[in-house]
Amino acid sequence: MKKTLLVLALASGFAMADEGMWMPQQLPDIANELKAAGLELDPANLTKLTEFPMAAIVSLGGCSASFVSPKGLVATNHHCIYNSIAHNSTPENDLLTNGFLAASLADEVPAAPGSRIYVTKAVDNVTAQVIDAATAKLSGKKRVDAIETNQKQLIADCEQDQGHRCRVAAYYGSLEYYLIKQLEIKDVRLVHAPAEGVGKFGGDTDNWMWPRHTGDYGFLRAYVSPQGKSADYHSDNIPYQPDHHLTLATKGLQDGDFVMALGYPGRTNRHRLPSEVSETFQWSYPTTVQQFTDNLAIINRVTASNKDAELKYASRVAGLNNYLKNRQGMLDSFANSDFLQRKTAEHNALKQWVNSSGDNKKAYAKDLINIEKLLAEQHSKARADYALNNASPRLLGVARSLYRLAQESTKPDSERKAGYQQRDIPRYQAFVAGMERNFDVSIEKALDLHNLSNYMELPKKQRNSDFDKVMGLQDGMTNSQLSALIDTWYNATGLTELSNRTALIDSTPDQFSQSNDPFVKAAVALYQADLKREAQAEELGGKIQQAYASYMRAKMAFMQSQGLAVYPDANSTLRVTYGNVTGRAHGNEDGNAWAPFTTLRGLSAKATGEGEFNAPQNQLAAIKAKNYGRYFEPAVNSVPVNYLATLDITGGNSGSAILNSKGEFVGLAFDGTLDSIISDWDYNPANTRSIQVDLRFMLWQMQQVDNATALLQEMGIN
Amino acid sequence: MKKTLLVLALASGFAMADEGMWMPQQLPDIANELKAAGLELDPANLTKLTEFPMAAIVSLGGCSASFVSPKGLVATNHHCIYNSIAHNSTPENDLLTNGFLAASLADEVPAAPGSRIYVTKAVDNVTAQVIDAATAKLSGKKRVDAIETNQKQLIADCEQDQGHRCRVAAYYGSLEYYLIKQLEIKDVRLVHAPAEGVGKFGGDTDNWMWPRHTGDYGFLRAYVSPQGKSADYHSDNIPYQPDHHLTLATKGLQDGDFVMALGYPGRTNRHRLPSEVSETFQWSYPTTVQQFTDNLAIINRVTASNKDAELKYASRVAGLNNYLKNRQGMLDSFANSDFLQRKTAEHNALKQWVNSSGDNKKAYAKDLINIEKLLAEQHSKARADYALNNASPRLLGVARSLYRLAQESTKPDSERKAGYQQRDIPRYQAFVAGMERNFDVSIEKALDLHNLSNYMELPKKQRNSDFDKVMGLQDGMTNSQLSALIDTWYNATGLTELSNRTALIDSTPDQFSQSNDPFVKAAVALYQADLKREAQAEELGGKIQQAYASYMRAKMAFMQSQGLAVYPDANSTLRVTYGNVTGRAHGNEDGNAWAPFTTLRGLSAKATGEGEFNAPQNQLAAIKAKNYGRYFEPAVNSVPVNYLATLDITGGNSGSAILNSKGEFVGLAFDGTLDSIISDWDYNPANTRSIQVDLRFMLWQMQQVDNATALLQEMGIN
Repeated sequence: MKKTLLVLALASGFAMADEGMWMPQQLPDIANELKAAGLELDPANLTKLTEFPMAAIVSLGGCSASFVSPKGLVATNHHCIYNSIAHNSTPENDLLTNGFLAASLADEVPAAPGSRIYVTKAVDNVTAQVIDAATAKLSGKKRVDAIETNQKQLIADCEQDQGHRCRVAAYYGSLEYYLIKQLEIKDVRLVHAPAEGVGKFGGDTDNWMWPRHTGDYGFLRAYVSPQGKSADYHSDNIPYQPDHHLTLATKGLQDGDFVMALGYPGRTNRHRLPSEVSETFQWSYPTTVQQFTDNLAIINRVTASNKDAELKYASRVAGLNNYLKNRQGMLDSFANSDFLQRKTAEHNALKQWVNSSGDNKKAYAKDLINIEKLLAEQHSKARADYALNNASPRLLGVARSLYRLAQESTKPDSERKAGYQQRDIPRYQAFVAGMERNFDVSIEKALDLHNLSNYMELPKKQRNSDFDKVMGLQDGMTNSQLSALIDTWYNATGLTELSNRTALIDSTPDQFSQSNDPFVKAAVALYQADLKREAQAEELGGKIQQAYASYMRAKMAFMQSQGLAVYPDANSTLRVTYGNVTGRAHGNEDGNAWAPFTTLRGLSAKATGEGEFNAPQNQLAAIKAKNYGRYFEPAVNSVPVNYLATLDITGGNSGSAILNSKGEFVGLAFDGTLDSIISDWDYNPANTRSIQVDLRFMLWQMQQVDNATALLQEMGIN
Repeated sequence: MKKTLLVLALASGFAMADEGMWMPQQLPDIANELKAAGLELDPANLTKLTEFPMAAIVSLGGCSASFVSPKGLVATNHHCIYNSIAHNSTPENDLLTNGFLAASLADEVPAAPGSRIYVTKAVDNVTAQVIDAATAKLSGKKRVDAIETNQKQLIADCEQDQGHRCRVAAYYGSLEYYLIKQLEIKDVRLVHAPAEGVGKFGGDTDNWMWPRHTGDYGFLRAYVSPQGKSADYHSDNIPYQPDHHLTLATKGLQDGDFVMALGYPGRTNRHRLPSEVSETFQWSYPTTVQQFTDNLAIINRVTASNKDAELKYASRVAGLNNYLKNRQGMLDSFANSDFLQRKTAEHNALKQWVNSSGDNKKAYAKDLINIEKLLAEQHSKARADYALNNASPRLLGVARSLYRLAQESTKPDSERKAGYQQRDIPRYQAFVAGMERNFDVSIEKALDLHNLSNYMELPKKQRNSDFDKVMGLQDGMTNSQLSALIDTWYNATGLTELSNRTALIDSTPDQFSQSNDPFVKAAVALYQADLKREAQAEELGGKIQQAYASYMRAKMAFMQSQGLAVYPDANSTLRVTYGNVTGRAHGNEDGNAWAPFTTLRGLSAKATGEGEFNAPQNQLAAIKAKNYGRYFEPAVNSVPVNYLATLDITGGNSGSAILNSKGEFVGLAFDGTLDSIISDWDYNPANTRSIQVDLRFMLWQMQQVDNATALLQEMGIN
């Protein structure tokens, strides 16, 4: 590993100790590193998606999960099934607070609408089909259109296999494309969740923090038709029998042990250019932080006197808080780092390498210059559009999307814009239905007033005259005039009614044109301008795709010339990251370090009995009585609760199965730590630690506190 | 080391990893362990008190210190020279707050009165002389008297060598006695102390705590007559030239490095019997904690409106706070441990061993039973006398001591009771003089009222009728009556005047008898009863000495039969303890650990600019400017401030030189941590850590902040 460390300063985005979200097929390339870290399996066994253990790893769309029994039992994080628990909760039967345990299969309840379990069946490199010979010659919007057409065709072909969902994912900055084929399980049921005082113990206070004591686990079950096919919910459906499921480790993890996380990381930005780093950290993140902070204050103000709205916006408030903590963490880390300087030096080294050989120069030099110019244009555009985009009321956004859907629906399905095809309709249905539970007029009015007021402060030239005209916005409007204007929209609109929103999904463009709904009218009026803006963006996007792919090809060639394996940035596809259980030499303050495990002792110590630290009484009683069952760990003189590891994970990895050196299940990843969030951009091995819930805690809680005996048996615990 | 670990449960007081306050002559017995820990010197070199490095190690009487230059420069803790800094401070020239740096030898100022530097010159086993054939046959008081006579003779002979101070110290529960001969340097001068915001940074808040950032160091210098002899202060005196002095390490300590502390630990209790443990932790400590808590409240109440008294009692308040934090730490640890059960099991194993062989049984069995009976008697007596002892006003205590001195002074010096001989007179002089700075009538009255009120609540039978009569205490006295009575004492006494107290030192018993001072009259009246109580205590003490020595002989034989080296409990004599620099797997809360080093970063972070965290502005500016000089340590990316090590130290070790594997100076021990204080009774290798100030911090502060250039040069830094 010495060699990789030597080029540390230049190697952001490339392999070093424990860094890397590897595509399964890449694992043999890093077999030596895996073995050195402690893996006892042959990496070749990890490349086969339909074999153990990869076949047990699933996506929930936004979260990761895994099969842990032959009967389709799925383990994931509590926070990944939070909506499903909430969905089944009533004031009389508050599953969130009390937890849920289905006594039998018959007692398992449907997860939240739209819940899915995706089982990846195939991943194929389709770069040559996406950028085929004809496409390769195109530029700008024509290139974007051709790429989209090719992708839609690949997807349509793939989805001929009923019950499967396919997508084409771009890798290495659109240098490569892979077709991902997944079995889509649509009948997903809630099996078990501990009480919120376990599964969300510590709440926002402990979020992104260590020491941590969160029992962030829960269980779903995949159901299929009696014929074993993907099917919508039906009482006749039966548990899905996965090809493989994970087996539980019988020996508890120890400090230093090898671990790997198998899951679906969402997005990282380790291959970005210096200008993207500066734009993001010096403009985009700070601007959004300001905007979201304002939004949060507005929502909190309105919900203070509106319990119904408070419940409807609880999830959004949690999301905003989570985002703000995350982004502020990133900004703090950025402010205290030399990341931009290093990134710039790294890019300069790349340019030097490119210019040092005639072939390289010919292949890459022009694009390296070009990409900078194109990105600058894109950044400038984004800044200009920022206030306008924010100023669009949420219902106007709904109307615009549905009008676009109506327009696209007039074409043959294969010619429709991606995202507006027949296969997307269920998403629109779920979306407009979901608004029943997350939309409140008083809050939206307050947000509109804030956003429009900001927008109207711009000089007229920087505003959009089409938008102003359609919405009735006039120079020098006071806040009370804006407020009165906003009232007129909400008084007149029917989009606050589910039936009206649903009806729009099936409406024709003509029906839209005849509507008197102010938001629908505005959507229709803005349509041509929207299309024009989209076309401009695609023209730029096509040029960027071409130049960016070339930049990435140059970067990869440069790094490979140094013998380094290169992994692609995360893109919500199946990845493997490996590392070791370990604490950290520096903790939350000077002179403190992080121990690798927390224990039931610390859980008791934090439990105030209130709010975010409301551990259940029966749990605390079990701790006090030292009812450790078989889960006592001498090394920590208690039952381990959470542990730290050097796993390179990010959002989307939540719920990822953690396997030990033998490939046995030892817990679930659920978080990282605040000062390592910037690793999404700038991996830092000294700081970066993932946080896992220990299998022993899960089993202890299920056995000693929640009496989930049948589930334990199903997982092989007798 | 495996072997010693196997008997861990039975081995309290015996050698295991890093445990042990070894007599220098014992070090060759543990040569293998020292080498395994990393020592590069031959342990034989550490046994020679007049050779390097032992010759450089000195005692300040209550603190440890060391010579660090050929010109008698002595390094020790800031808190060990605190009184000397305070003594030289005035409101106009506040050395405590600002620090002190003598510009030249001529600017060095006398340390506080009574300051001494003791250089150990010889340590000889005198057991055969102390318990000679005749003494061995005696019992009870006669035995105590004979031991005392023999000791006094040894001391008198030893002190024939002018300028030396000698004592006989008991080891292994009075099983062995050693005569310690020390050069007594009486002209001690203050050379340098950093500002209180450095030397006492963190104050009581951080006391016994980690993470720690205290620059607890300062410098004295030993002066002798122009002829090189011990002498009182004189302007003609010259710096003492020690036989050897420590040299500074040129390579900074790292995590895991070998270290040893050379110093004078005060007292440990690792060889105590189970009944002593229970009496101490279940009665003695809790009772004293209550008493001291009350005293502290009273002192704080009175000083709230009396600035002069506040200053006079500041040192006592600090002492009470320190004691309370220490004892509460011990009590907490005791409550959470199985110490008493282990101690009992250990003692039972000893009894079993004794009874398993005829010879052992004959040698020890009777004494093992006897010691329990005698200790029970002693404990019962201590409980009975507790309230009475507390009820004696401080000035009555002074009068009793000085009357005893007068009585003893009528005898030839060699026949006087130990502690009342000619050699002790300077101590009495310093004591009565010191009261000018630590005695306030309003506080003493309030304390007397509290203590007498407690005492008067006892049933008459449990009170002392002699005391009641002499003091005018009558049944059923109300607090206001007690208060009025106390007022009459202080109105009538002259002992609040230094001249009167000093006069008593030279007074005859007759002069005492003629005094009308109420405290002096009481002292005279109580004298015979005091003598009688003392004789009773000595009768019991003699029996205990005999039986306890036998118990210890049995215990040592038992442990040595298992191949374990045995070190004696601390008794303020020169000891060596070794270990390694290391953090700790468990920190202040679950999931946290301790890093081995703190740094300037943490110091800045703690610096509030106020109270206990008032770091000097120029220090903070130097940190901010990253003026690290040559003291930057890459491993911690800063200058190390304090570090943890597995050194087995206790009170008295403050100021101990820490040497590395080569015997080079690398810092000063100054504290332990609260949850390891119970190690004085029950050594716990997982918990116990000593806290040191890093040499690099001392030098950095002196060079980059305090400009102590000449001193640095004197220590060999160029």
